[in-house]
Amino acid sequence: MPNDEFQWIQQLTPDRHVQKHVIEGIGDDAAVFGTESGYYQLLCVDTMIENVHFKKKTMSPEDIGHKALAANISDIAAMGGIPVFYVVSIAVPSTWTDEELHGIYKGMSNIADTYQMDMIGGDTVSSPHELMVSITVYGKVEQDASLVRRNARPGDYVFLTSPTGRSAAGLELLLKKGRLSDFNDREKALIACHQRPIPHVQAGRAAAQTKARIALNDISDGLASEAFELAEASNVILELYKDQIPIAAELRLYSEKDCWNWILYGGEDFVLLGTVSPSDWPRLQEAMKQQSIETYWIGEVKEGSPHVMLTDQSHTKILQKSGYNHFRPT
Amino acid sequence: MPNDEFQWIQQLTPDRHVQKHVIEGIGDDAAVFGTESGYYQLLCVDTMIENVHFKKKTMSPEDIGHKALAANISDIAAMGGIPVFYVVSIAVPSTWTDEELHGIYKGMSNIADTYQMDMIGGDTVSSPHELMVSITVYGKVEQDASLVRRNARPGDYVFLTSPTGRSAAGLELLLKKGRLSDFNDREKALIACHQRPIPHVQAGRAAAQTKARIALNDISDGLASEAFELAEASNVILELYKDQIPIAAELRLYSEKDCWNWILYGGEDFVLLGTVSPSDWPRLQEAMKQQSIETYWIGEVKEGSPHVMLTDQSHTKILQKSGYNHFRPT
Repeated sequence: MPNDEFQWIQQLTPDRHVQKHVIEGIGDDAAVFGTESGYYQLLCVDTMIENVHFKKKTMSPEDIGHKALAANISDIAAMGGIPVFYVVSIAVPSTWTDEELHGIYKGMSNIADTYQMDMIGGDTVSSPHELMVSITVYGKVEQDASLVRRNARPGDYVFLTSPTGRSAAGLELLLKKGRLSDFNDREKALIACHQRPIPHVQAGRAAAQTKARIALNDISDGLASEAFELAEASNVILELYKDQIPIAAELRLYSEKDCWNWILYGGEDFVLLGTVSPSDWPRLQEAMKQQSIETYWIGEVKEGSPHVMLTDQSHTKILQKSGYNHFRPT
Repeated sequence: MPNDEFQWIQQLTPDRHVQKHVIEGIGDDAAVFGTESGYYQLLCVDTMIENVHFKKKTMSPEDIGHKALAANISDIAAMGGIPVFYVVSIAVPSTWTDEELHGIYKGMSNIADTYQMDMIGGDTVSSPHELMVSITVYGKVEQDASLVRRNARPGDYVFLTSPTGRSAAGLELLLKKGRLSDFNDREKALIACHQRPIPHVQAGRAAAQTKARIALNDISDGLASEAFELAEASNVILELYKDQIPIAAELRLYSEKDCWNWILYGGEDFVLLGTVSPSDWPRLQEAMKQQSIETYWIGEVKEGSPHVMLTDQSHTKILQKSGYNHFRPT
């Protein structure tokens, strides 16, 4: 925990802002900025707590910073938006060193640079036990884009922008062996999915630019849970076809049971799940393809009281809407 | 901790929004809203943690909700702005009941109603130990208003919008006796200042509307510390005259030592401290008066390397910039 708050804030304050609309950044009572016409503003918040969402055993300080911001950027992606600014609230126990704290901010600023985002404010307080990072991201989206969850209609296709489950598989490896152990390349890939997830901003932007009616959600709580959210918000059934759900190459060595558990219930892949009408589907695929993004057709929207079905050849079961709990077996 | 997140979010979601620019409120990946031309946007975040900023002994759940939002609104007030929206990140230990949790949100929504603010998003997670509430407030201010900390110039007057120290005195009573004890009316008034502080939004608005060059700060960390922030941001000396600093009636019974300790170093009064040129001072006083707000002339800005002086007749001492620590003697 830094002793001198003034000095600490000065260290955190960037020399310059990437975004041209910043009037006042860090260092006053509130950040001040302008907006552009033609856009709506987006605001979302996401919190990560030590021993709930991560452990020192599973994530380095830079991983923590990266992922805390990535989770928020992913929410902006799920609205088809452009992330612009972020403010950070951090609660720090005395057991965390200044170097670790700097690592967290370095992780944040690295991913922020990727998206040309500016940190424009924050709050640093002490915490009696766990480290806590809460980030609020401000973004923007064209006023004529609408990628809200309630947009799904019976007859729509269900799609994914990437296979799911890798982050949960990576977490299991980290919990078993600790992040400083030796891992082979396949394991390293899974671990990277957990520690440094890449939000699907370009996929969200491609979807927004089709101007089609698309329901979109990011996979933070697992495929089943996010599908349920779309179903509930749109008052429809989502039927997923098991043989169409993509299985990441890195997962194929694991048991059928583990693999599907991760794919359906593992969280924090931060890929996008959506629905689109069959007539707009080719246009959406094309828009994604231009950004080198693959899209996976995985099911259909049906009429009926909200739930999620998984159909495997002739057999259909109802998926539970259970959320993702990091340190409890899924 | 609520068992069903879906149900919990539904309970939190307001039936309607007060602000007309809300496109999407709670319930999607991010809130969506429009902006008005002629305004800059304001963003600030503030966090309260159990056993660091409050204890169950000192604050009811409603007090916690009220104060967490009030602290943020106060930051908007210190920019001369209008608070508009808020998003809430809350981390809840299993020991807190659903009823207590509802109390926190009730405290927030009551003060939000006063300012016609809408809650448009949030995140609820579990916490292994302490309850943590982090709120981000979004506000707006006219583009031609500028009440930033670096605005102080040598020759300016220093002013306060209310006496300080009552919140810290109230906290001391609460720590001694607990919030459920019997208190007399004077003590009750002090406790209310600690539990349900009223941010000085109208004072900030009146200051903004003068269009004068004003440096403004809210008293969250104590008069000495906030004066130091203005001094440092403006690269000037703030000289405060002890016999001009207002002493609240409720504090006059206490020892000289306690009283001045609270006045100078007690935090969370959320009144405003500012500087203004002598020529704009009458206009500022008049604008405040029209809102029934008293202004207290308490000192002058001098040229020199940044610090804060307290002058008592012929004797002058330099005030330390020490911040406010709730549960350590000030």
